Amino acid sequence: MSRRITWADAACPIARAADVLGEPWTLLILRNATAGTTRFEDFRAQLGIADNVLTTRLAKLVDRGLLTKLPYRDGGRTRHEYRLTQAGSDALPVLHALGTWGHNHTASDAEPTTLIHTRCDQATAPGAKCDACGKPLARGDLAWRGSWLSDGEVPLAEPVA
Amino acid sequence: MSRRITWADAACPIARAADVLGEPWTLLILRNATAGTTRFEDFRAQLGIADNVLTTRLAKLVDRGLLTKLPYRDGGRTRHEYRLTQAGSDALPVLHALGTWGHNHTASDAEPTTLIHTRCDQATAPGAKCDACGKPLARGDLAWRGSWLSDGEVPLAEPVA
Repeated sequence: MSRRITWADAACPIARAADVLGEPWTLLILRNATAGTTRFEDFRAQLGIADNVLTTRLAKLVDRGLLTKLPYRDGGRTRHEYRLTQAGSDALPVLHALGTWGHNHTASDAEPTTLIHTRCDQATAPGAKCDACGKPLARGDLAWRGSWLSDGEVPLAEPVA
Repeated sequence: MSRRITWADAACPIARAADVLGEPWTLLILRNATAGTTRFEDFRAQLGIADNVLTTRLAKLVDRGLLTKLPYRDGGRTRHEYRLTQAGSDALPVLHALGTWGHNHTASDAEPTTLIHTRCDQATAPGAKCDACGKPLARGDLAWRGSWLSDGEVPLAEPVA
């Protein structure tokens, strides 16, 4: 990231958010984390991203509080995984708005990615209530259908407490 | 823009949208266009952006169909202004989601920017209907209150037909 300008202290919340999220790899890492990816090598394999690029983007997402780095045991070794925080989980409306715009305004034969309320099996936007059935939307009842990851349903990752 | 990778043909609509919108200056130019800015020198003055950076970003937004370049008469000269297209106007949910996230998850003493349905004077998210009064939301009835541009209300620009 060779950017020299920061909008981290801008008065405008759109500018402050763009300072964190206005970068393609960052958005795609967050997308994959939202779909449950937690490990460096899985982000790398899914995204085809260079190690150094992935390292800087993950570090920024941790620094800005969207991901948290937690230890896990891998055989005899302690390694680290990257888990969504509440702030990272709350970026879902940004990803959803991007996906909707991308589906409507960029050319592709690909099917749309749909956010599904699994309790009623209908499409919804992120929010307090399901657009289809009107019941409260719990994070654990959300899945992406027809995503880059799978033709089936991918449950959205819950933030760490 | 020294990026060598493109996601313009990605199967994922989030990736295709990030290819266009995943860049801070692009988002801020679109924000200002949404607030009614149309002229090169006004974008430059409002954003404090270098000429060459503004030129490349405007060209990309025109190329990707979010802005359109239209002639206007300035005294005896023909000049050009940049007007929102329907695709550019439809990026409002992306800007709104970024602003909401930025207000909730980045530190600032600044007031939030609120999207107002001017017919009922209440806050709403972008969408088919006003969250507050339930009536259909027309673009011409939307304004930002407490934006970077003004403490008052800034009517949102309508797309060119």
